Amino acid sequence: MQNIDVREILKDKKNIFEIGLQIWADNPPANTPETIWNSMVYSMKVGGKRLRPVLCLASAELFGVSNGDVMPMALALEMVHTASLIHDDLPAMDDDDLRRGKPTNHVVYGEAMAILAGDALLCHAFEYPMVHLNLPPERIIAAISCFAKALGPYGMCGGQVWDMEGKESPENISALKTGQLIRASVVTGAILAGATVEDQNKIDLYGSALGTAFQIADDILDVIGTEEQMGKSIGKDQSQGKRTFVSVYGLDGARTLLNKYTDLGISHLSGFGDKASFLIALSKYLEHRTM
Amino acid sequence: MQNIDVREILKDKKNIFEIGLQIWADNPPANTPETIWNSMVYSMKVGGKRLRPVLCLASAELFGVSNGDVMPMALALEMVHTASLIHDDLPAMDDDDLRRGKPTNHVVYGEAMAILAGDALLCHAFEYPMVHLNLPPERIIAAISCFAKALGPYGMCGGQVWDMEGKESPENISALKTGQLIRASVVTGAILAGATVEDQNKIDLYGSALGTAFQIADDILDVIGTEEQMGKSIGKDQSQGKRTFVSVYGLDGARTLLNKYTDLGISHLSGFGDKASFLIALSKYLEHRTM
Repeated sequence: MQNIDVREILKDKKNIFEIGLQIWADNPPANTPETIWNSMVYSMKVGGKRLRPVLCLASAELFGVSNGDVMPMALALEMVHTASLIHDDLPAMDDDDLRRGKPTNHVVYGEAMAILAGDALLCHAFEYPMVHLNLPPERIIAAISCFAKALGPYGMCGGQVWDMEGKESPENISALKTGQLIRASVVTGAILAGATVEDQNKIDLYGSALGTAFQIADDILDVIGTEEQMGKSIGKDQSQGKRTFVSVYGLDGARTLLNKYTDLGISHLSGFGDKASFLIALSKYLEHRTM
Repeated sequence: MQNIDVREILKDKKNIFEIGLQIWADNPPANTPETIWNSMVYSMKVGGKRLRPVLCLASAELFGVSNGDVMPMALALEMVHTASLIHDDLPAMDDDDLRRGKPTNHVVYGEAMAILAGDALLCHAFEYPMVHLNLPPERIIAAISCFAKALGPYGMCGGQVWDMEGKESPENISALKTGQLIRASVVTGAILAGATVEDQNKIDLYGSALGTAFQIADDILDVIGTEEQMGKSIGKDQSQGKRTFVSVYGLDGARTLLNKYTDLGISHLSGFGDKASFLIALSKYLEHRTM
């Protein structure tokens, strides 16, 4: 594998995404009420790792399609992630006042607007790529179908329910709650770039394992991280008695699993050679954050 | 125009839709948490006029495509309408305990689940037609794009914001809040049925006028209707000081406008002859409910 500077590429990709985000934010569609747009943009611009869009850009690039060509999909992935955070933070859900070190959406804009801004981001996330992607229609339908499946009752929203109920295993909860959208981030990139079904499947297996690894790392950091590092309230899972990888397997057990899922994900990329260097390095980087 | 029994056709179309709904409800996708599916199905089955799906089925039929072929789109229209009602009824929004004579979603399933069930219905509404429509991909992309535009920041969600803020004219508020989805109901039907762009435009103009007429009728019924007739709390707009057609133009003024928009809508269907009989009769039927 090529020796690459993952932080540098991550920064570059994030910067490319931030440019796309800024162009989107500066161009509200005609007839959009200013307040809802401001509320949507506020949460989209609060920041974060931009992991999902970066994964989509990197996956498309692996199959030879440029970042610009899949930017509408990358933006859509961040829109639904942001929508889920806005709704998660509501008083009726996790009741969080702080997200990435800034006041949460409902603290700034009120609860009713936060509900509507989340709804609007969800809907806009389907419109935006469908209108702005300039690729063959079959690829667009396949990508948006994959995206939509990752979000609904047996995707992200269903995972939130299992997370609340705390009965399922951490593997099952995280597969829906976080895993599906991370998986969709790389798979939509591959689909839009015209990858073969065989290659899409490899990327799918990589994404599924990465999604689990990501959730394990998040659970570990909720215990060992600082609020500054995480940009959100920490120790919350524990105080809410949630079933996390750490609460079920202990810190050492979770670290062992994290290593297992990281390696499993990487194993599915072996056929792509140097072209997969960044995705491989990114998986290792996410693992090492917890050490 | 043909002399038709609008109530009879309306009942038939509604029955056809209810069959599609039941099949959907009985077949949750694998890996769906039971509680979120129950919560989604509860609100989908509470009932109502099923106006949006009926409009979609009727519009497709006008262009020679059968009800079954567009059923996934009809279901999607009802899903987003239902999602908007679930979120509207939340304590942070309109705080309603009763919808169509039954306890609202959050009263039965709790606020957190109601937020997630609404989110899941929104996302599922994009997946379901994309996966289940068996029509040319260009039509599907065009229909889903039209659908998505009707919902987001300059559609239904944006309209809710203008409704809360109470500064815009009733025409502007209703064009987004109710109008866009009603418009999309007939336009998606026409697009999926392969109507020419010229015919899509006529249907679009019909749908826009019908959407405004529908909101005017709703505002009138909020004042003169009974709770039993409406199946929801009435007099609420007035007590919340909302800008409705009645509060701005008075009851007589609103009735005049209702007549104007009903006739305007119908005028755009003149080129379709007898095939448009049901849509024309439906417009008149909705107007006469308020007399």
